[in-house]
Amino acid sequence: MIYFDNSATTKPYKEVLDAFVTVSSEYFGNPSSLHGLGGQAEKLLFQARAQVAGHLKVKPSEIFFTSGGTESNNLAIKGAAFLHKNKGRHLITTRVEHASVRATMEQLELNGFEITYLPVEKDGRVKVKEVEKAVKQDTILISIMHVNNEVGTIQPIQEIGELLKTNSSILFHVDAVQGIGKVPIHLHESRVDLCSFSGHKFHGLKGSGALFIREGARISPLFTGGNQEWKIRSGTENVAGAVAMAKALRMTFEKNQSGIERMKKVQSILRAGLSSMEGIQIHTPFEHAAPHILNFSVKGMKAEVFIHALEEKGIYVSTTSACSSKKKSPSKTLLAMGVSEDLAGSAIRLSLSFDNTIEEANTVLIAIEEAVQHLRKVMN
Amino acid sequence: MIYFDNSATTKPYKEVLDAFVTVSSEYFGNPSSLHGLGGQAEKLLFQARAQVAGHLKVKPSEIFFTSGGTESNNLAIKGAAFLHKNKGRHLITTRVEHASVRATMEQLELNGFEITYLPVEKDGRVKVKEVEKAVKQDTILISIMHVNNEVGTIQPIQEIGELLKTNSSILFHVDAVQGIGKVPIHLHESRVDLCSFSGHKFHGLKGSGALFIREGARISPLFTGGNQEWKIRSGTENVAGAVAMAKALRMTFEKNQSGIERMKKVQSILRAGLSSMEGIQIHTPFEHAAPHILNFSVKGMKAEVFIHALEEKGIYVSTTSACSSKKKSPSKTLLAMGVSEDLAGSAIRLSLSFDNTIEEANTVLIAIEEAVQHLRKVMN
Ligand SMILES: Cc1ncc(COP(=O)(O)O)c(C=O)c1O
Ligand SMILES: Cc1ncc(COP(=O)(O)O)c(C=O)c1O
Repeated sequence: MIYFDNSATTKPYKEVLDAFVTVSSEYFGNPSSLHGLGGQAEKLLFQARAQVAGHLKVKPSEIFFTSGGTESNNLAIKGAAFLHKNKGRHLITTRVEHASVRATMEQLELNGFEITYLPVEKDGRVKVKEVEKAVKQDTILISIMHVNNEVGTIQPIQEIGELLKTNSSILFHVDAVQGIGKVPIHLHESRVDLCSFSGHKFHGLKGSGALFIREGARISPLFTGGNQEWKIRSGTENVAGAVAMAKALRMTFEKNQSGIERMKKVQSILRAGLSSMEGIQIHTPFEHAAPHILNFSVKGMKAEVFIHALEEKGIYVSTTSACSSKKKSPSKTLLAMGVSEDLAGSAIRLSLSFDNTIEEANTVLIAIEEAVQHLRKVMN
Repeated sequence: MIYFDNSATTKPYKEVLDAFVTVSSEYFGNPSSLHGLGGQAEKLLFQARAQVAGHLKVKPSEIFFTSGGTESNNLAIKGAAFLHKNKGRHLITTRVEHASVRATMEQLELNGFEITYLPVEKDGRVKVKEVEKAVKQDTILISIMHVNNEVGTIQPIQEIGELLKTNSSILFHVDAVQGIGKVPIHLHESRVDLCSFSGHKFHGLKGSGALFIREGARISPLFTGGNQEWKIRSGTENVAGAVAMAKALRMTFEKNQSGIERMKKVQSILRAGLSSMEGIQIHTPFEHAAPHILNFSVKGMKAEVFIHALEEKGIYVSTTSACSSKKKSPSKTLLAMGVSEDLAGSAIRLSLSFDNTIEEANTVLIAIEEAVQHLRKVMN
C-alpha cells in the first residue's frame, strides 16, 4: 500500500497511540476532580499544553484544546464575530479557504455579517495589497489560511501580519491545519491572534485539535458549561487526546529536521515525472508551495475514475479535499485560481508524509502513466 | 484503590481501548475519502451509529456523534434557539441542570432569550404541573435532565413527554449523560426530540459523545464546514472514538442486566451505614433516585477536607459535580432542594460503577466513620 492522502488524514504514530492508551487507562481521572487522580490528569494536560506551546513558541496559556480543526476554525471565527459584533460586522477571508472557514463565513453572512472573499492569483496566493484594500472601519476579523489543503499554496501570513501591526482592532485568524510542522509559521512575529490546528493531520488522533489565542485577544466560547480551558471551551477535557497530540507534534518537529528535505525531493520527483507526461497539468505552484502537496489534472479524465484506477494498484490518493470529495461540484480553490471547470473536475491531489519515499514516488509515477494510458484506451 | 467517583468520569473498559487502538491504527482513513480506506472508516462509523441507535431503540439516522456531553447539550440548546428564534424566544429548564445546560441558558439569556428556571421539590424533582404552567405561546424548547449528576434524582421525563404530546411546536431536550444504561429511558415513547450522551461516563473515552435528534426535529449546527453528520456537525469524524463509545454502550447494556441490582445493593448498604452515623444527612432521595449516586453531608465539615481524608485511605470520592468542584460556591442543586448553604458546603458524592463491590462499600463506610471521628477530634 502506498498512502499519498496525508492531507485528508494521517496514520497515527505508534508512540502516539501508546501514549493515548497509557493515559486513558492509568490516568483516567477527570482533571476537575479534587482528588489525586484528578490532579494527575490535570498535570498531564498541563504538560501537553506546555509542550504544544513550546513547539509553537507561544505561552501555554495561549493554547486551548479542541476536538479538531473544524472546531478550532468555528470557535475562532464565530467566537470573534459574536463577541465583537457591536464593534463591527465586517470580516475578510479568501476564496480558497477550507470548508470549515468558508461555510462558517457563509453562516455569519446569513446572520447580518458582511464578508469579503478575496480573490487569489493564478498560484492560489492572495495579494497583500488586496487585503489592505479590503480593510474597512468596521472590519473585526481577517481569516486567511497558512497552507492551502488542495494545492499547497502558502499564503503571505507574515506580510499580512506586518500590515496589521498598525491596526490593533482587527483580529487575525490563521488556519494552520495543513502547514504546521511542514511550513514554518511564527505566530507572535506575524501578529497572529488566533490559529487553528488539528491532531489527525500530523499523525495525532482524530478528535483532537487546538486553537492558539494570543494573550489579550478575546473571543466568545462556543461551548458553555464547566468553564474548562479558561472558560473558552467547556467540557471534560480529552486528556489522552491532548497528550497524544503533543507527542505527535513533538515527533513531527523531530522528523521535520531531515524530513522536509526528503519530502521536497519526493515532491520534485513527482513533479518532474508528471510534467513529462502528456495531457497532465500541474496546479501546485513552483514557488510558495508546501512540500507535501502536489495537485494536477489529467485532461479529459474524471478524477473519481482515476482514483479508483490507482487504488487497484494499491495507491491511495484523493480528488481535492476529503471533505468535499463526495460533493460533485468542482474545487472552489482551483476555480478561484482560474482553472477551468472541466480541468478542475479532473484534479488529483497527492499528499505526502515524512515517511513516504522516493521509491514510492517512482512507483506512483509508473502507476499514473499506466492508468492514464489504460483509461485513455478504454475511453476511446 | 476504591474509585467511587464514577459520575465524574469512569475508567474505560479494556475492550473499549482495544477497539480504539485497532480502528486508529488499521482503519485510519478519513470517512470522506473516496478510496477504500475511507470506505472502511465510513463503514465502521456506520456500524457504530447503528449499534448506538440499537441500544437506544432509535434509528441510526437519529444519532449524531459529538465530542462529549457538553457539546451535545450546547448543540441541542443553541442549535434549537438559533434555528427557531423567529418562532419564539422562550426556553424552559430547571434549577438543577448540569453547568453545560445552565451556562448555555445564561448565555442565551444575555442574547435576547427568556429563560424560565423551574424550581424543584425537596427530592430534587421538578413537578410536571410546574412545567405545564411555564409553557407559553413562544416557548421553543424545554430542557430537563434525566438523572441529576449531583444527587441522582430521576426527573419525570415520560410524564413531561406525555404533556408535550399535544404540543408539537416545542422541542424537548433531555440531558441523559448520567442516566444512560443505569436508568431506563424511552426516547420515542417519551416524545423526546433531543437527547445528550457522553462516552466517558459509561467507560468509553473522553472526547466522544452523541446527540439524538428525532427524525423531523430541526436544529442549526454549531460547527459548519465539510457537512459531516448530515450537516449537523462538521469536522473529520472521530471514528475510533465512536466505535469505542458504541462498544462501551454495548458492554454497559450487557452488564446492567445484573449490574443494576448489585449497584442498588451497594447503594443501600452505603445508605444504611451512613444513616446510622451521627451528624450525617443524606441528600439523595429514596424514591426516584438512580442506583449509582449517593450524596450526603457530614455536618460541620468542609467537603474538601473530608475528600482528602478519604483519599489518604485510597478512596476517591468528590464534592458535587467535578466541573464545579474547583469553584468554591455551594452546589446549586442542593440549594434548589432547600438544603442550607452550610450543609451544601459539606456535601460529598459517592458514585458507583457496575464493578464496585459490597466489600468496597463496607470498607468505605469504615473509612468514613474513622475520618469523621478523626476530623472531629482535630477540629475540637
Ligand atoms: C486547511 C484545513 N482546515 C481545516 C480542516 C478541518 O480539520 P478537521 O478535519 O480536524 O476538522 C482541514 C482538514 O480537513 C484542513 O485541511
Ligand atoms: C448531567 C451531565 N451533563 C453533562 C455533562 C457534561 O459531559 P462531558 O463531561 O462529556 O462534557 C456531565 C458531566 O460532566 C453531566 O454529569
